[in-house]
Amino acid sequence: MPHITLPAAIPGIASAFVFRPETAKPMRELAHILLFESGTADGLSSLERELIATYVSSRNTCYFCQTSHGAAAASHAGGSPALVASVCADPKSADVSPKLKALLVIAGCVQSDAKSVSAAHIAAARAEGATDLEIHDTVLIAAAFCMYNRYVDGLATWQPRDPEMYVGMGKQLAAHGYRQAAAQ
Amino acid sequence: MPHITLPAAIPGIASAFVFRPETAKPMRELAHILLFESGTADGLSSLERELIATYVSSRNTCYFCQTSHGAAAASHAGGSPALVASVCADPKSADVSPKLKALLVIAGCVQSDAKSVSAAHIAAARAEGATDLEIHDTVLIAAAFCMYNRYVDGLATWQPRDPEMYVGMGKQLAAHGYRQAAAQ
Repeated sequence: MPHITLPAAIPGIASAFVFRPETAKPMRELAHILLFESGTADGLSSLERELIATYVSSRNTCYFCQTSHGAAAASHAGGSPALVASVCADPKSADVSPKLKALLVIAGCVQSDAKSVSAAHIAAARAEGATDLEIHDTVLIAAAFCMYNRYVDGLATWQPRDPEMYVGMGKQLAAHGYRQAAAQ
Repeated sequence: MPHITLPAAIPGIASAFVFRPETAKPMRELAHILLFESGTADGLSSLERELIATYVSSRNTCYFCQTSHGAAAASHAGGSPALVASVCADPKSADVSPKLKALLVIAGCVQSDAKSVSAAHIAAARAEGATDLEIHDTVLIAAAFCMYNRYVDGLATWQPRDPEMYVGMGKQLAAHGYRQAAAQ
């Protein structure tokens, strides 16, 4: 049961967003830019951005975020549930680019102790072609999911165990992003 | 030295905000609502909100955030550097209300493991008069600073050790909040 009175039958972060629309708006906007809008420009794709978000959420053991963003990753071109599972289990052996593997190492550092990101980690990512913007966005996606995950779990939001619900949510997020619902 | 090329002579998170203005805008907006704007309504004051932000940043050992938000807290009515130091050192013995002490326990849980926020922690805060909105904002401030702190340290931003600079920054933040600079 949630720690505060949240709207019933609305899962995870969406219930907290309805409770506090003022803070929901910039939180949705940040996710929209980082995961959706920027994925259509040069650099990291939305699939890769969602994989970083899912990996960090998995390390934070946030069921709602890892399942919903995993479903979004699986819905993007080139994504699949198997790919998502392999990234969370062991990024080094997953079927992703060497650049993304190096960026996932940085994301893992940010999740556990941001000061542990080293010059060697950065050099390894650059050696695989990572740009300043890609390194920046990796750090910020990882940092932002340390917020979203804690928000979802710190309020003890309702996180149903219905896989089909998350598949539908993932398709919606992959197609339309995160800003839209801000107008709800 | 920062891990990516950030504008020189701009400290901490501000340098990352200049590098990526698209994500800076919602991040500033979120801080403005949580720390400044909501502090003028009923409930937690801006001083109390800044103390929660400073406490979490201190636990994350983020020099830039704990010093700048500590200076903002000290600049609000009723704040002082001694109060900030005592909250970071031991909230239980600090000269703050029993309600804020109970909320700082919740903030500490969110910082370390959001799932460790228990019904007993919530009941203790309610017994001191905490509302749903105050509990919500405490959880979100703590979660958000787990993002801001990781962003600042994960990019290895420049964090000068000049106390006077932070005092000036704190006065500016306490007087005008966080939204203003988004127009820079």
